[in-house]
Amino acid sequence: MQVRNPRTGAYDYEIEPLNELELTTIIQKMRSAQEDWVEKGIDFRIEVLQKWKESVNLRKEDLIEALILDTGRSWETLLEADIVASSIDRWCKISKGFFSQENRRNSSIPFLEIEQDLVPFSVVGVISPWNFPLLLSLIDTIPALLAGCSVIVKPSEVTPRFIKVIQETILEVPELEHILEYVEGAGATGAALCKLTDIICFTGSTATGKKVYQAACDNFIPVFLELGGKDAVIVTETADLERASSAILWGSVANAGQSCLSVERIYAQKAIFHELVSRLIAKANNLKFAFPNAKDGQIGPIISEKQVEIINEQLADAIEKGAKVHTGTGKCEEMNGGFYCFPTVLTNVTADMKVMTEETFGPILPVMQYIAQDEAIELANQTIYGLSGAVFAGTEEEAMQIGRKMKAGAISINDAALTAVMHEGEKNSFKMSGIGGTRMGPSAIKRFMKQKAFLINSKQVNDPWWF
Amino acid sequence: MQVRNPRTGAYDYEIEPLNELELTTIIQKMRSAQEDWVEKGIDFRIEVLQKWKESVNLRKEDLIEALILDTGRSWETLLEADIVASSIDRWCKISKGFFSQENRRNSSIPFLEIEQDLVPFSVVGVISPWNFPLLLSLIDTIPALLAGCSVIVKPSEVTPRFIKVIQETILEVPELEHILEYVEGAGATGAALCKLTDIICFTGSTATGKKVYQAACDNFIPVFLELGGKDAVIVTETADLERASSAILWGSVANAGQSCLSVERIYAQKAIFHELVSRLIAKANNLKFAFPNAKDGQIGPIISEKQVEIINEQLADAIEKGAKVHTGTGKCEEMNGGFYCFPTVLTNVTADMKVMTEETFGPILPVMQYIAQDEAIELANQTIYGLSGAVFAGTEEEAMQIGRKMKAGAISINDAALTAVMHEGEKNSFKMSGIGGTRMGPSAIKRFMKQKAFLINSKQVNDPWWF
Repeated sequence: MQVRNPRTGAYDYEIEPLNELELTTIIQKMRSAQEDWVEKGIDFRIEVLQKWKESVNLRKEDLIEALILDTGRSWETLLEADIVASSIDRWCKISKGFFSQENRRNSSIPFLEIEQDLVPFSVVGVISPWNFPLLLSLIDTIPALLAGCSVIVKPSEVTPRFIKVIQETILEVPELEHILEYVEGAGATGAALCKLTDIICFTGSTATGKKVYQAACDNFIPVFLELGGKDAVIVTETADLERASSAILWGSVANAGQSCLSVERIYAQKAIFHELVSRLIAKANNLKFAFPNAKDGQIGPIISEKQVEIINEQLADAIEKGAKVHTGTGKCEEMNGGFYCFPTVLTNVTADMKVMTEETFGPILPVMQYIAQDEAIELANQTIYGLSGAVFAGTEEEAMQIGRKMKAGAISINDAALTAVMHEGEKNSFKMSGIGGTRMGPSAIKRFMKQKAFLINSKQVNDPWWF
Repeated sequence: MQVRNPRTGAYDYEIEPLNELELTTIIQKMRSAQEDWVEKGIDFRIEVLQKWKESVNLRKEDLIEALILDTGRSWETLLEADIVASSIDRWCKISKGFFSQENRRNSSIPFLEIEQDLVPFSVVGVISPWNFPLLLSLIDTIPALLAGCSVIVKPSEVTPRFIKVIQETILEVPELEHILEYVEGAGATGAALCKLTDIICFTGSTATGKKVYQAACDNFIPVFLELGGKDAVIVTETADLERASSAILWGSVANAGQSCLSVERIYAQKAIFHELVSRLIAKANNLKFAFPNAKDGQIGPIISEKQVEIINEQLADAIEKGAKVHTGTGKCEEMNGGFYCFPTVLTNVTADMKVMTEETFGPILPVMQYIAQDEAIELANQTIYGLSGAVFAGTEEEAMQIGRKMKAGAISINDAALTAVMHEGEKNSFKMSGIGGTRMGPSAIKRFMKQKAFLINSKQVNDPWWF
């Protein structure tokens, strides 16, 4: 299978998608290796993950190189590579606390006691997307490994170059043999994982997420789905517009908008609407494409060619319906075979435009004005998505009051897109943005385990209800 | 729709299944009422549930009468009716503790704080079975109501007579208007609920559970499924056989075996096999049918006519393959239009018999002997189910050691079927016995709520990652 390079458009890489038979063989070995993995306990697993962290660190340069080829962008890649180590450390710490909890207690029936046990799923399947190929391949993987599961990861076929490097880092840690597997593949490989594993973690679009849910459902497999978003930001007339404009711009255009949690809709109170828009325009115009070199500028290419079409279609639809384009050219620009989208501030937008209803996954900032606060909240909630959102207001209380009414899993208060940098808030996806437990905090470990209860007649008393 | 009476076989009751349009109207009202329900807080909800408890208590006699007509059995009905009050009290207490938790804390980033919120699903759909019609219609309903959800319950069309009484008790509590609804219906009504609600709780067979999962999946609705079981009991050579035989008999024949958690397979160590079997036979022969009156004897009728066929088919298959029938007649007996199955101790059973692989849902006790402990564990785990199980051994340590290797969500130690009477152990269903969070303990409340995180830039510091 040929893979496109996002900076050149050339098909310069190849992967060999694994088929169901090959996966069956691998997963069989994982099932057997996992028994030992869980048996050896949390201290052992922490030790092994720390070894792997060192192994990844030694190959950091190669990993970054592969990821830049995969994604075409540079500064986000450095951030992504840095996160591996800190994220392993964070999960090791959380799991240490998690596994030290007391698990025996009395019950309300005098002669009965309860002991709780946790039994990890044997094989976790992770299907991860192309926007943060490394980071999002690990976000479920690390807590699942610490929980005692074995994990098979299929990163997106759009950005597969980093897989080989990761595979090599795993080979350096023999304890991870058949415990952590990265495999190449596209849809068919993913579908096979929805048959062969015990639980599926999927991060990606809502459209594909629905298919994954269906495939897993056919095989009676539970799922965790982290899907699309259409994050709204509300800016009240009391907000600090200097802060708001900087944060919103960052939240909207980092990774060229290719994040589920990127800001995609901005609702500004009438009194500050023009001021906010001018600041967004001025600050957007300070940004530059990461071109001709990946290390230039801030705005990398759109990674997936399909996404280029979606962004162009949404922009064309908005312009046709009367939206005003304040920055950029109103479409993705082809440069040397890659496609780049300039941060695009839009006004005169209406609620029926695709750019206000469908996930864009590009650096587009449509700004709409509102008069009453309730109107802003209604507009913000007028979406099938409920991933996250943000509020800017003069006081935290005012912002919180609005945030409480927003139907989304995480709300940044006087800041934007904080879920990208804060990993401690436990959150679920609302509406079509996902299904299943939080991937942050201790609960994220627990979701990879079944709870098992031992109900113990410890005093060998004959029960009153026996015949 | 005509409803059969399990004691007479007569179709002497009628229900009017609600259609999708009618449900849509009801659920619309529930969505709007629920906003107020959650707003009013946990103390209010506890108060309302306590009022409802009183209202149910006042109608206890009518409820029992309807339930005896529904199920044909008496002593289990009294138990079931008693549980309502204690279960409301228990959940009120648990939820009080649950909602008093601290929800604001610092994060690892100095200028950021986190506040956690919990947002209940708006409308919970409960589809409940016929074996404990009242009890199992409430097991998810009460924690969901306390969580702040509205709940629509569709009990089984096999045992619907108690619905009218429950509806009347709800009418006595105006605060529950459009918050708690009981509706009549069969498969089509259930399917409509899988379209219209926000989360589905289903208790019933694995076959129907798969269909429910599929229907909910088509509409991107999450599910909690509590399905079938094929609970195994292991009895070692050191076990107290007097205790073991009494407990196993109770676990196997209470409610005429019509419980998901009833004992359906017994593995006895060779040295004590004959002794255990003789005790089971002797004790089984002490039991009597609840006939001609419901208050006679201990073994009520098989409630569902379809189940009679399944039990007969499994017994015939076992007998054909060489099983020896020690008690009863080897099939369900028709008496005055009802079908009754005598507690049936079987030996000479083999692992390929239906009675050892498929859920029986009848008072059948197939006993197999084993030599080595590992063999017993392997046999016990040789099933697609993983609901619960039990171990009897001379010491708790020995029993726990075996129990740890059994792949099921709850293991009774030196007792049987304790999940029927203990409500504090948190447990998940393993394998085909279910999907989703525990329905016991504080986590059972939490599963009806989405976690929402407020990520607060409390010191209004400009973030290092902004442009």
